[in-house]
Amino acid sequence: MANQDLLGELVDIARSFATYGKVADYIPALRDQNPDDLAISIYSIENESYYAGDHLKKFTLQSISKVIALALVLMDNGEEEVFSRVGMEPTGDPFNSIAKLETHKPSKPLNPMINAGALAVTNMISGNSVVEKWDRLIEFICHLTGQKVTYNEDVAYSELQTANLNRSLCYFMKQHGVISGNVEDLLVLYTKQCAVEMNCMDLAKIGAVFANDGADPESGKQLITKDVARICKTFMVTCGMYNSSGEFAIKVGIPAKSGVSGGIMGSVPGKCGIGIFGPALDEVGNSIAGVKLLEGLSGKYSWSIF
Amino acid sequence: MANQDLLGELVDIARSFATYGKVADYIPALRDQNPDDLAISIYSIENESYYAGDHLKKFTLQSISKVIALALVLMDNGEEEVFSRVGMEPTGDPFNSIAKLETHKPSKPLNPMINAGALAVTNMISGNSVVEKWDRLIEFICHLTGQKVTYNEDVAYSELQTANLNRSLCYFMKQHGVISGNVEDLLVLYTKQCAVEMNCMDLAKIGAVFANDGADPESGKQLITKDVARICKTFMVTCGMYNSSGEFAIKVGIPAKSGVSGGIMGSVPGKCGIGIFGPALDEVGNSIAGVKLLEGLSGKYSWSIF
Amino acid sequence: MANQDLLGELVDIARSFATYGKVADYIPALRDQNPDDLAISIYSIENESYYAGDHLKKFTLQSISKVIALALVLMDNGEEEVFSRVGMEPTGDPFNSIAKLETHKPSKPLNPMINAGALAVTNMISGNSVVEKWDRLIEFICHLTGQKVTYNEDVAYSELQTANLNRSLCYFMKQHGVISGNVEDLLVLYTKQCAVEMNCMDLAKIGAVFANDGADPESGKQLITKDVARICKTFMVTCGMYNSSGEFAIKVGIPAKSGVSGGIMGSVPGKCGIGIFGPALDEVGNSIAGVKLLEGLSGKYSWSIF
Amino acid sequence: MANQDLLGELVDIARSFATYGKVADYIPALRDQNPDDLAISIYSIENESYYAGDHLKKFTLQSISKVIALALVLMDNGEEEVFSRVGMEPTGDPFNSIAKLETHKPSKPLNPMINAGALAVTNMISGNSVVEKWDRLIEFICHLTGQKVTYNEDVAYSELQTANLNRSLCYFMKQHGVISGNVEDLLVLYTKQCAVEMNCMDLAKIGAVFANDGADPESGKQLITKDVARICKTFMVTCGMYNSSGEFAIKVGIPAKSGVSGGIMGSVPGKCGIGIFGPALDEVGNSIAGVKLLEGLSGKYSWSIF
Repeated sequence: MANQDLLGELVDIARSFATYGKVADYIPALRDQNPDDLAISIYSIENESYYAGDHLKKFTLQSISKVIALALVLMDNGEEEVFSRVGMEPTGDPFNSIAKLETHKPSKPLNPMINAGALAVTNMISGNSVVEKWDRLIEFICHLTGQKVTYNEDVAYSELQTANLNRSLCYFMKQHGVISGNVEDLLVLYTKQCAVEMNCMDLAKIGAVFANDGADPESGKQLITKDVARICKTFMVTCGMYNSSGEFAIKVGIPAKSGVSGGIMGSVPGKCGIGIFGPALDEVGNSIAGVKLLEGLSGKYSWSIF
Repeated sequence: MANQDLLGELVDIARSFATYGKVADYIPALRDQNPDDLAISIYSIENESYYAGDHLKKFTLQSISKVIALALVLMDNGEEEVFSRVGMEPTGDPFNSIAKLETHKPSKPLNPMINAGALAVTNMISGNSVVEKWDRLIEFICHLTGQKVTYNEDVAYSELQTANLNRSLCYFMKQHGVISGNVEDLLVLYTKQCAVEMNCMDLAKIGAVFANDGADPESGKQLITKDVARICKTFMVTCGMYNSSGEFAIKVGIPAKSGVSGGIMGSVPGKCGIGIFGPALDEVGNSIAGVKLLEGLSGKYSWSIF
Repeated sequence: MANQDLLGELVDIARSFATYGKVADYIPALRDQNPDDLAISIYSIENESYYAGDHLKKFTLQSISKVIALALVLMDNGEEEVFSRVGMEPTGDPFNSIAKLETHKPSKPLNPMINAGALAVTNMISGNSVVEKWDRLIEFICHLTGQKVTYNEDVAYSELQTANLNRSLCYFMKQHGVISGNVEDLLVLYTKQCAVEMNCMDLAKIGAVFANDGADPESGKQLITKDVARICKTFMVTCGMYNSSGEFAIKVGIPAKSGVSGGIMGSVPGKCGIGIFGPALDEVGNSIAGVKLLEGLSGKYSWSIF
Repeated sequence: MANQDLLGELVDIARSFATYGKVADYIPALRDQNPDDLAISIYSIENESYYAGDHLKKFTLQSISKVIALALVLMDNGEEEVFSRVGMEPTGDPFNSIAKLETHKPSKPLNPMINAGALAVTNMISGNSVVEKWDRLIEFICHLTGQKVTYNEDVAYSELQTANLNRSLCYFMKQHGVISGNVEDLLVLYTKQCAVEMNCMDLAKIGAVFANDGADPESGKQLITKDVARICKTFMVTCGMYNSSGEFAIKVGIPAKSGVSGGIMGSVPGKCGIGIFGPALDEVGNSIAGVKLLEGLSGKYSWSIF
């Protein structure tokens, strides 16, 4: 397992790559992040933790939340229902693309890691109102982290204002019966979900739950069923890292999900969870230093699952 | 020029093709139309008129309204402004497709006859409110027909409820700066525009204005500038008949615009306007008997512009 | 009708736009053309001719040959057979695109003016061998021009060597039964067809035959049937000017077909044919000065058919 | 590890699904296969083997050969060179699609498991002639199986005759500099590669080499470098099972590559290789009974890598 000193060294090496990336600028609230930030936490299934960099700095989950919502929704609705509305296949198209919804028959999103699929997933969270659904989701996330976690209101508000592409995806899916209910309600819920805020340690803890077949490494409690944990890790490999998921699988080989805030959640099966924050992004939207850091770690500890 | 008897014969022949088509069923209010209906009016620039079939039966304009709104908007804003937001090129894609908006750069609709382009056009009608814009549009249409024309509230309401594809198009365009303002307001205006109701004679009269270089055959008043009339007729040829515009140009060769209600407005330059109503549609969405009727007329009177 | 002096003036004005274009460089044999060249001939159906610029300079037809081959093939095979293998609809895709062949069902080229469609058309020229087919085609062209016309061997050879995109299109169409026979034979024939060489006056003469409903203005002989002449002019409007056919129809409104050599053949119905040579191209592949020249002429003489 | 009796039971259960599939009919030589055939071999890295069904029946590798050629080419050329010509990303498009080659920039195949990518890979096999390249490839395969393996001439010939889609892909890639050299030579080599014939036991042995990090379980000799073995297994997960790779990863979770002959090669890291033959295919082209059999095995022995 990782040791503290080595982790610091790897972070220092990886940090130098941050200059080749840039922070997301299309979401106003993310523009002001410091591109040189880089932090990591590792949380083992034996309940030990390591970190380097400013591991307590908070950031929003953004697309990382897609995996967590998927876990909840799979437990809420079962595989059959969920996969009748969203596919299981990777796509070569960008995460926010609408073209495949039109050209691919049936008109369901190819997978739950692209925006269209994630919106369809969030649409299936059980609950009689946005409030109820949100309460269930945030409670689930609090259980996973073992911490009191909430969302960043500014970020959620900012993203709701600029969510026209997601609105477009929603109305398209509504037309084709993939989602139901009020679109604005769904967008409110979805932008809150994306704006859930935590630090690297919290994120590593969630990764550890997935790595531990869904059981909390601390309490032993089964927070996610084993099958659902496995399904989520599979999606993290086949489509967790935007349009470089394939390259990441080859070079790193760790189930992982990234967000445009610069966060990455990794999950090394049977070993540990990883939480990374490095807001300078590469051109497909992954933390550029974060990916380098994971590549270093995976090589060092043979963490590739392949 | 056409004579009354021949027109009746041609209608009888064309009507038999109606059995191969079917009325639009995706818009609830259009479902109940009688598929065997077929009527035509011809209005010459010498101010004479002919008709056959139930030429006073009313129907909604649907996509035919796209040409009329375009004429108004071109006069309101000028060519340069309008074509900075909507293109001039035909497309092989369906009229309600969104894929090209994403894959084609810049992200503006290819032409004003597909839904995306028509929404962008209606978005440019001058006026400080939906009411003002609507008033200007319907007044313009009344001038063109020389009749008191209004819209069908049931149809407008029904289409607004089911306008999710158009909503999707609008939010996509709003994201890319093609349209501005409130999307629901635009959809209210657009569905009213599509629901404008008239009979074949009224429609033939509008076609005659275009045929007469924009001047009212009755009063001689220039209702549309000559250039705008020419531009509109050009779009009617290159993309007026949905995805069989090319075939229609070859087989008929008359500038024409169709709607899913089964209406077709034709405009034979320097000769006459044509209004047709035949709600049984072919597979691309044109009145199946109406197209046959125009083919017969064009052959008989050598009305092809080519 | 045009007069000689005015034509010279219009050419001088249009020539200045050549600096904004550039000669085709992807075909080796076209690279060395002088971008400042601009010449025009007009050939009226009353058998009079006008010209300005170096109207006797030769150039290869390239895509202009698509219309001529289409005329021959329509007379050889009839509309039904031809349009069972190639469509009649304009497309928003580039002339050399393959994507629509795959995504559009059935897998036939959308129209005869894009490369795929033109290859399918040339594949239908009657004859038992490449030699026989070629002899028939070049004889047809000689009849149209009234001159002894042949092809440029260097250009044909050069294009055959670099015809891999066309090879790709051919094998795709062969797989789907759109074309039959030996692909290399077809490419030899097609590249010769594209390399047919003539001057502006010859090209204007061909345009005049189309303008004159297929009859030779000189001899009165019907070289092309009236229906076929009409069909060809229709395609020239809906898809003759690459991906700015729509814009050209609006701004100029003359049936026309361009080639990447910088040639444009125009055909003003009932009036005249036009031959233009100006090798500096705009970004879609049309002679940039040639288009300006046609815009000037059309405005001056009200030659728009709309 | 699997035992012989259980394997027989699982095969019997899976075989019943064969009736829902059908043998490939677009390749003449595959049409006559018996749809009810189902056989499996398992070859452990401890050098033990199990089987059920007619495990000595021969079949051609078809797309399974893509992984083997990739292994050879990666060792021949190194990762950097190979991935400059072919990508690492999964795609939602069919394995024989050409559209993405055109729309995706740069114009390189998205991954080595689709036809375009596999052709680009085979194009990189070292050797001064088709014969030399072929000799190196077949020798490599013989080393992997430990058997004298060759190809089926009838199948290779048959596929070469009908390889027009692959020809189309090749010429498109040649145009864009992705492949070089003579296209027919490449197709001869590629169709021989696809026609390599072996039985389930041979295939399981190859899978075992990949499972054993590239080392021959029998001799301990490193036939494939560890990194290359890892890369190949990664591609087998992200894009090995045509357009249901994502679903297969979720339901089975074993690195695997299928072919339209009905073969599947599986590779359970650190455990065993699997060879399956069941020619009745599902709609995306995978052995329908073979997939069910792997699902049963993976569930029984917890072989999912996730």
